[in-house]
Parts: sequence; structure tokens; C-alpha cells
Amino acid sequence: MVIPRRVVKRFSDLTLEEVSDMFISAQQIGGVIEKEFGGESLTITIQDGPASGQTVPHVHVHIIPRKRGDWADNDDIYPELDRKEKELGKELKDQHEPHKAVPRVDNEERKPRSQDEMAAESASLRKFFTQFEDIWS
Amino acid sequence: MVIPRRVVKRFSDLTLEEVSDMFISAQQIGGVIEKEFGGESLTITIQDGPASGQTVPHVHVHIIPRKRGDWADNDDIYPELDRKEKELGKELKDQHEPHKAVPRVDNEERKPRSQDEMAAESASLRKFFTQFEDIWS
Repeated sequence: MVIPRRVVKRFSDLTLEEVSDMFISAQQIGGVIEKEFGGESLTITIQDGPASGQTVPHVHVHIIPRKRGDWADNDDIYPELDRKEKELGKELKDQHEPHKAVPRVDNEERKPRSQDEMAAESASLRKFFTQFEDIWS
Repeated sequence: MVIPRRVVKRFSDLTLEEVSDMFISAQQIGGVIEKEFGGESLTITIQDGPASGQTVPHVHVHIIPRKRGDWADNDDIYPELDRKEKELGKELKDQHEPHKAVPRVDNEERKPRSQDEMAAESASLRKFFTQFEDIWS
């Protein structure tokens, strides 16, 4: 997921510079995750507004590495994307309202990744993005 | 649909300038079509490679104005998008190989728009894009 630091809801709210930055980042990140996760293609999507499935009012791009046959039907990716979007909304809400947090329910076959697993993945991918070190530090 | 003039297959094949141009165009065009077609949101998608549904080997962005309840299930937009993608592949093929053209089959409830209807729509939208006149002429 590629998300600008400035919190705006809709794609149209971004400045021209932010539009460029977000998609130049998406291009670079897409190249890395496709290769690293053994993909052959990418699904690149903005759900720009609630009527297109957006649940988090902070514009962001989903980038999903794809393989032939990864879902029984090619478009089964999209309900999955909606589940992630809802999960994300839940996580952000829990961060801000931890007293309201309830156990997160994922789909039944999948186990949510642990914080450790996500940290390890993040560390292994970080070497591909040294050009951004100055932004992170 | 927003498509760069230079024919390259994948999003990663675009130069940084082309990435910026394509999405700054997508932002402007999205704003117009959402308003003109009475939408509330936009679905903005690249099917970047065959395993994500791309049928035409020329990178392009789909921009679809959305309304709450426009499809029974929010994600029914995506099979529809695949139908359009196949239609487009067929049209481009017919243009280049007219001797192989066969009647185009759309889904049963929808009648393909005529050339006249598409020309009228194009003319009615053109006034919103006067900033591109120098490119067209």
C-alpha cells in the first residue's frame, strides 16, 4: 500500500506533485514486490471514495503482485482487497480508540501475520528502497 | 481510459515523466467524469500484466465513476471491467486485422454504443479539457 503522509480523502485532493510522488513510488515499489514475491503482474488500484469500496478516508494505492491462477477467478482479488480495506479501517480505528478494540476476524483460512512476521518482511524489503533513507530518517 | 501515446506493455516500462503525466491526466479526467456522470466515487485501476486481467499490451488506466448501489455487489465492477478489457482487445485487433473481425458480443442487457453516440459524448466532454487543445491539434 502506498499512502501519502498528508491526510486527504480523495485522489482529487492531492497536489500535482503528490500525484507524481505517489505513483512514481508505486512504480518503484511495484517493481520490487512483483519480483520479490514471484509475481508476473500487478493489480494497481485506488478505491477513490466510499462508493468504490474505500473505508479509510486517506487516499492510498493498493499494489498486489499477481500470478496466473492465484485466485480461482481472476477477479476474486477484489473481495479480498475489500477485506483488507476493512481490516485496515479496523486497525486504524483500534489505534485511535484502543478501548473499543475487539478481536480482529480475518477470513477463516488465513491467519493474520504477527507483528514479528511483518517486521521481518519490512526489514527484508527495506534494502530495495535505500533511495528513501533520507525520508525515513 | 487514460493511455499514453507511447506503446509500452507494463507500468514499469514508463519513464518517470510518463508516470506523472498519465496520473495527473487521470486525476483531471476523473474529476470531470465523476461530476458529469453523477458519480460519488471513482474506481481507478491498472491491470498491469496478463495475470491481473490485462488483455491489451499497452499500459492504461481505467477510471470508472461509481455510485452507491451501482452494482448489486460493489466488486461486480471488476468482471465488467474485464469484459470492457476484452472488448477493447477485440476492437484494436479488428482495426488492425479487419478481415478477421467477427460480430462483437457484449453482455446481453447492454447494447454497444454507436459511433455517433460515442462521438457525441466525446464532443460534450471536450470542453472540460481545453488545456489539452495543443496536444490534439
